[in-house]
Amino acid sequence: MTLPFTIEAQSGTGRLGRISTAHGDVETPAFMPVGTAGTVKAVSQDILEELGAQIILGNTYHLYLRPGHELVRKMGGLHKFMSWNRALLTDSGGFQVFSLSELRKVTEEGVSFRSHLDGTSHLFTPERSMEIQIALGADIVMAFDECTEHPAERERARQSMEMTLRWAKRSKEYFEAHKHECPWTESGLRVIGTSGHRESQNPPSAQPRAAAVHDPGFSELPATPALFGIVQGGMYGDLRRESAERTVELDFPGYAIGGLSVGESREKTMEMIARALDVLPRDKPRYVMGVGYPEEIVQYAAMGVDMMDCVLPTRAARHGLLFTSAGRMNIKNARYAQDQQPPDPKCGCRVCSRYTRAYLRHLFVSAEPLAAVLNTVHNLAFYLDTMRAVRHAIKLGDLSGMRSGSVSLA
Amino acid sequence: MTLPFTIEAQSGTGRLGRISTAHGDVETPAFMPVGTAGTVKAVSQDILEELGAQIILGNTYHLYLRPGHELVRKMGGLHKFMSWNRALLTDSGGFQVFSLSELRKVTEEGVSFRSHLDGTSHLFTPERSMEIQIALGADIVMAFDECTEHPAERERARQSMEMTLRWAKRSKEYFEAHKHECPWTESGLRVIGTSGHRESQNPPSAQPRAAAVHDPGFSELPATPALFGIVQGGMYGDLRRESAERTVELDFPGYAIGGLSVGESREKTMEMIARALDVLPRDKPRYVMGVGYPEEIVQYAAMGVDMMDCVLPTRAARHGLLFTSAGRMNIKNARYAQDQQPPDPKCGCRVCSRYTRAYLRHLFVSAEPLAAVLNTVHNLAFYLDTMRAVRHAIKLGDLSGMRSGSVSLA
Repeated sequence: MTLPFTIEAQSGTGRLGRISTAHGDVETPAFMPVGTAGTVKAVSQDILEELGAQIILGNTYHLYLRPGHELVRKMGGLHKFMSWNRALLTDSGGFQVFSLSELRKVTEEGVSFRSHLDGTSHLFTPERSMEIQIALGADIVMAFDECTEHPAERERARQSMEMTLRWAKRSKEYFEAHKHECPWTESGLRVIGTSGHRESQNPPSAQPRAAAVHDPGFSELPATPALFGIVQGGMYGDLRRESAERTVELDFPGYAIGGLSVGESREKTMEMIARALDVLPRDKPRYVMGVGYPEEIVQYAAMGVDMMDCVLPTRAARHGLLFTSAGRMNIKNARYAQDQQPPDPKCGCRVCSRYTRAYLRHLFVSAEPLAAVLNTVHNLAFYLDTMRAVRHAIKLGDLSGMRSGSVSLA
Repeated sequence: MTLPFTIEAQSGTGRLGRISTAHGDVETPAFMPVGTAGTVKAVSQDILEELGAQIILGNTYHLYLRPGHELVRKMGGLHKFMSWNRALLTDSGGFQVFSLSELRKVTEEGVSFRSHLDGTSHLFTPERSMEIQIALGADIVMAFDECTEHPAERERARQSMEMTLRWAKRSKEYFEAHKHECPWTESGLRVIGTSGHRESQNPPSAQPRAAAVHDPGFSELPATPALFGIVQGGMYGDLRRESAERTVELDFPGYAIGGLSVGESREKTMEMIARALDVLPRDKPRYVMGVGYPEEIVQYAAMGVDMMDCVLPTRAARHGLLFTSAGRMNIKNARYAQDQQPPDPKCGCRVCSRYTRAYLRHLFVSAEPLAAVLNTVHNLAFYLDTMRAVRHAIKLGDLSGMRSGSVSLA
């Protein structure tokens, strides 16, 4: 099996699952912190491990521009380069090409654009995106799609969806022919271990930390990355359904729902997800890209979504917005200047067990680097703990009892 | 005894010592990381503990302006506010008033200045500085001195030194009358514990983590902060000697040598330190403020200096300069772009045992927040490990065998 996925329990439409990757298991529903340029901003890899992150996301667009996929390949792939021994997922670069670069031109071939860093010209095609992602060597890579702009007329949404399907086919063809060129497949062994600490002073090598050859389950682990297809279709339920059906026909080990959280209402997001879920196979992971607020990720997990990613917890943290069990908190607010309570009295993370709101506020208004660190650690803990609670509730068959605070404190 | 200080071993003029504070012991010679505004930039308190920092420095000028000493006092003092349960030292604010603020005017009374933050007017006097430092509640506080500018003519250096002596006397008078107002003295108990993790969800309290009343050595621990005097005298050896003699006449539990590392040659720095050390009592800690490079701190420790502080390891880190056993390394240099070695193959810190030069370079050139974190952790590890090695060498009676790399790699 390309990407082993086991459903271990269900509660309503929610599922407790487990994806087995060559770099460890991923319990689902999972929230994936975004490690844009090979780093989850302000948070070191050991802290991510401690928080329980089992999979993080890398952005192909950013890594391609800097430091470059060939350099990362030479370093042994993204896992080795950033010293992350757990699962990695890379997006295709499509979204950032549209949102970050300038002077972009879309043709059937692909998207030509200028780098937002230095203005140099580049061309992303399905084949190029696959080549880059294979060089980076994530466990899960994404088909190169077109993110339909919002709003979009029906005919425009259809045309865009059709091109995404043609690009998905090209992505798969190239991927199947080249996936074995991934930097970690030569060893064919599973890299086991929750920490990246080297046991000697030697330079990092391709040696896995434990010989998995004796593991009876060894032969079932992926020997190459897995490619997911992406459902588009704008804000049209019937197009979403059709996109899902036709993407399934191409047969991928997992399916994402893209082009959402681009300005539409929460109701519309849910509706588009539901239309796609009606059709996507239940025995493969379903991944909604780019969501969401704490209450959203709980809701989508209950609907049967298995994976989600979003910059929200990390970006909000750097802007002083904390997510807590009592709702959102703008830590820079003067009301916290002398507040000796922990940020979230119900949170057990390293930040809440040690620091006060007053101190975090001081750090933030003083523009101290530690503000970003601590705020981010807490927000990620909140998101990852929330998903852990969801998984636990599904296991107990009581997902309807879960609720995530959505009242704003400030 | 105001501040118990025990010399446990000697090697030449170097001494292995131990200062007992109400917030834990400080092994000397010690290097004190600078936590300017109540935070060592980019590094959380648990990492500082892990690195073995036993004492850090807070800047009175910065904390007075923001968040304000009265707020910190209300929070229970700086230890509680920043959740640092080990020793703290605050400087008097004198240096920053001269180097950071604008429109400052010095009179016999003190220094009036405008805040660099918002231009508001303030007046620092010896009494005011003591009041602020007592409110912050560090274990060791510094007399309010005038940092003689460099260069300075002999007569100017003398006048400045004389004022520092008058201000030292005023500092001590106010301090002795008010030191019991320090926020942690009410409990009179030693706060024991190397971590700040709260065992419950209650707000931080003044309760120490262990009742020290059963500790037979309990009655010897300081019940209030300790005030150190500061030797000035510019770059004139005879003035340095006189300043030291007359500061000792005022009788402090420890003595600092200030006004150095302001542009003079390394030889001059050493000469001025030596002239003061000739006279300062051997049974009390000697603290050189604002130094230095790795080879310097080893050298001064060998001369008999017990404490040092400097922003160099932390500030250099944020500028991409790493200190290693093979010398200085500018991590942004292109030569490291594909270098898979650890930053310092001889360093056992969390950074060197996990990350490569290539990755650190990527983080730095990408202006990632993690760059400051990892670079700072390594540099502090290097400095603290260096001092640990010095202490060990003194214990073995072999300080002359110590050497710190000073060759620049880039």
